[in-house]
Amino acid sequence: MSYNEKFMKKAIAASIKNIEQDGGPFGAVIVKDGKVIATGGNRVTANNDPTAHAEISAIRKACKKLNTFDLSGCEIYSSCEPCPMCLSAIYWAHLDRLYYGNTKKDAANIGFDDSFIYDELDLKPADRKIPSMQKLRDEAIKAFQIWDEKTDKIEY
Amino acid sequence: MSYNEKFMKKAIAASIKNIEQDGGPFGAVIVKDGKVIATGGNRVTANNDPTAHAEISAIRKACKKLNTFDLSGCEIYSSCEPCPMCLSAIYWAHLDRLYYGNTKKDAANIGFDDSFIYDELDLKPADRKIPSMQKLRDEAIKAFQIWDEKTDKIEY
Repeated sequence: MSYNEKFMKKAIAASIKNIEQDGGPFGAVIVKDGKVIATGGNRVTANNDPTAHAEISAIRKACKKLNTFDLSGCEIYSSCEPCPMCLSAIYWAHLDRLYYGNTKKDAANIGFDDSFIYDELDLKPADRKIPSMQKLRDEAIKAFQIWDEKTDKIEY
Repeated sequence: MSYNEKFMKKAIAASIKNIEQDGGPFGAVIVKDGKVIATGGNRVTANNDPTAHAEISAIRKACKKLNTFDLSGCEIYSSCEPCPMCLSAIYWAHLDRLYYGNTKKDAANIGFDDSFIYDELDLKPADRKIPSMQKLRDEAIKAFQIWDEKTDKIEY
């Protein structure tokens, strides 16, 4: 697939519509074979879900619609450059391609600054602003051993 | 609040139970005022949701239960060091503290390797494995202008 302007316009329209529907100014669409599979808006405050950014909302809807956890063969058009949470989700969902409108600098200019998260990700757990400590590794590893020995697991 | 071993044991128990329930070997609990508010497992394959890692599942449940998008005052205990998606979600949810059992190296050893995402996050969009292109910024910025001028918005 190659870039199609009409889908970027749809993502932008979703970002504007989402403001009217008490959400944040972000929208995204997921496209497969030239068709929109899912549209998402930022529903963090509307749905009390801090993970409901536009891209993640669209990924969840697309997976539900296609009955899969793997969106290979799909592309995402987002009205804004994804934050680290959404960018990571785009990798986990195996999307083929990303198009975005506003930059993260544009987002920071209106109060949505994710640069601190990028900075935090690069630090060691003990050096992060949210205190992080490892505990009980010898017990936690048991789940991994069970998984490793399981013969009928669904890998992804 | 200070670390309480019983909650880490609950997160580990959730990771083992989750395998028995056709999920991945990860579990997390969110605690407030000495009580478990929510428990989550990795439901990626079970629910066809690539964003349904244990931490995100627990965050969504806790927010639903407490009727908020802000988990300040809560702590998360995870059976494994969070991936970049979940770690970012922990920041967006404003959790106070993180305890984890297995390391990301342990996770990589059983086939759950997120190091490529950390590597990708540090690259410029154009250099990433998932091709990323900026388009129509002049149109996309309109949503941000509308947001900026909106007087009754819920900021977060």
